[in-house]
Amino acid sequence: MTALQSHPRFVSLEGGEGAGKTTVLHALRVALQEAGAEVVNTREPGGTPLAEMIRGLLLDPSHEPPAAETELLLMFAARAQHVRETILPALERGAWVISDRFTDSSYAYQGGGRGLDAGFIAELERRVVGLQPGLTLLLDVDVARGRERTRGRDLAAGANGPDRIERERDEFFERVRAAYRARAAAEPRRFRVIDASQPAQAVADEAVAQLRAWRESA
Amino acid sequence: MTALQSHPRFVSLEGGEGAGKTTVLHALRVALQEAGAEVVNTREPGGTPLAEMIRGLLLDPSHEPPAAETELLLMFAARAQHVRETILPALERGAWVISDRFTDSSYAYQGGGRGLDAGFIAELERRVVGLQPGLTLLLDVDVARGRERTRGRDLAAGANGPDRIERERDEFFERVRAAYRARAAAEPRRFRVIDASQPAQAVADEAVAQLRAWRESA
Ligand SMILES: Nc1ncnc2c1ncn2[C@@H]1O[C@H](COP(=O)(O)OP(=O)(O)OP(=O)(O)O)[C@@H](O)[C@H]1O
Ligand SMILES: Nc1ncnc2c1ncn2[C@@H]1O[C@H](COP(=O)(O)OP(=O)(O)OP(=O)(O)O)[C@@H](O)[C@H]1O
Ligand SMILES: [Mg+2]
Ligand SMILES: [Mg+2]
Repeated sequence: MTALQSHPRFVSLEGGEGAGKTTVLHALRVALQEAGAEVVNTREPGGTPLAEMIRGLLLDPSHEPPAAETELLLMFAARAQHVRETILPALERGAWVISDRFTDSSYAYQGGGRGLDAGFIAELERRVVGLQPGLTLLLDVDVARGRERTRGRDLAAGANGPDRIERERDEFFERVRAAYRARAAAEPRRFRVIDASQPAQAVADEAVAQLRAWRESA
Repeated sequence: MTALQSHPRFVSLEGGEGAGKTTVLHALRVALQEAGAEVVNTREPGGTPLAEMIRGLLLDPSHEPPAAETELLLMFAARAQHVRETILPALERGAWVISDRFTDSSYAYQGGGRGLDAGFIAELERRVVGLQPGLTLLLDVDVARGRERTRGRDLAAGANGPDRIERERDEFFERVRAAYRARAAAEPRRFRVIDASQPAQAVADEAVAQLRAWRESA
């Protein structure tokens, strides 16, 4: 694989912490299933047994933190596996695939957040991923509100506290948000930006409406 | 880091399975310590707590096998960490670093063995490694003899049997050997090829003599 192929039944959800990606994922699945489609919901980093183990290494704060370059390569190692083992087989048998994060997250977090060169990220994308979502929904919300939501969620779930990336400072997440918005502006055919400061039901309704419009146009 | 820097106190040992790298590593350490040097012996994949966990993912045959691209990126993720956390700090304080495998192993195994593009490997090397050994000792032995030796070692150690990469077929290891020899021929200033079919003591003596000659010339 050396070029980027877009697939119409491959949809990604993107956005910063607490934007509501995981919440919307379920609404999209239900909408597609009601329309009779097979749907595979998946996530990054992760989506295969090995890729989930790589996720564990990435988010676990117990060993020494990865250098920015290490983090980038671990993300793409997991993604290379995810594409080959989970996403492509599902698309080939006719299913829809909805992924909670995909390559745009690397441009936003490792590129915007950590300052790694976007040209190198693009080279990794071409060389080891080769696949792009037909539709990407960017859930956009200001950093403070998103972080407030994840704190609420983590308290409710009795979680162990924030993972390694969630512990970053607000400026980091401001750069992430800016990188996401710049990508959406540069690729208007693929991206739809949803105002995720709205109530959860309104965000989900808008995401479902965007997906429906996409299906009808494709 | 975008260019390759060579360091005179950084030495790598390369070769196929059972060539005798780990055996020679100890002889080199003893020789340098007798000369009063601080020596850090390390290995790849591995060399930091996180990189050793990545090694675990790479060699463990219990989850699904990594795609070739996944394997390549995991190797370079571990190497990026190894360089930053272990090798550069040791070189900066004046120590010698001897590594049991380094980037040449990726050219040989993921490039020669798995057929991945050497140009992409070179890009990863420039982008995330940036460092080259001043001296690389290639222990060259025919595939059958090397494999016989590891079988002997593993039986003696009561090991769990071969790891995921050791289970490859002979043709894989023939390609690995050919790639190593081609790299040595292309970079004669950095590489010394040692006939590793000799008895262990003769191989170690030759390696120590090559290291001594290198120190005196550097
Ligand atoms: N639009 C919304 N308004 C208010 N709360 C929301 C909204 N969307 C999601 N939430 C709540 O905010 C929390 C975070 O939502 P969710 O886990 O879906 O976000 P996320 O984007 O997946 O976050 P992460 O990046 O951490 O995975 C949850 O408790 C969820 O119920
Ligand atoms: N020159 C030699 N002649 C005979 N046996 C040897 C020689 N060198 C090493 N051995 C033995 O062969 C086995 C493999 O050696 P060693 O573990 O050093 O190889 P290696 O290159 O590190 O292998 P691996 O790639 O599996 O790490 C050991 O049992 C070792 O004692
Ligand atoms: Mg989520
Ligand atoms: Mg060894």
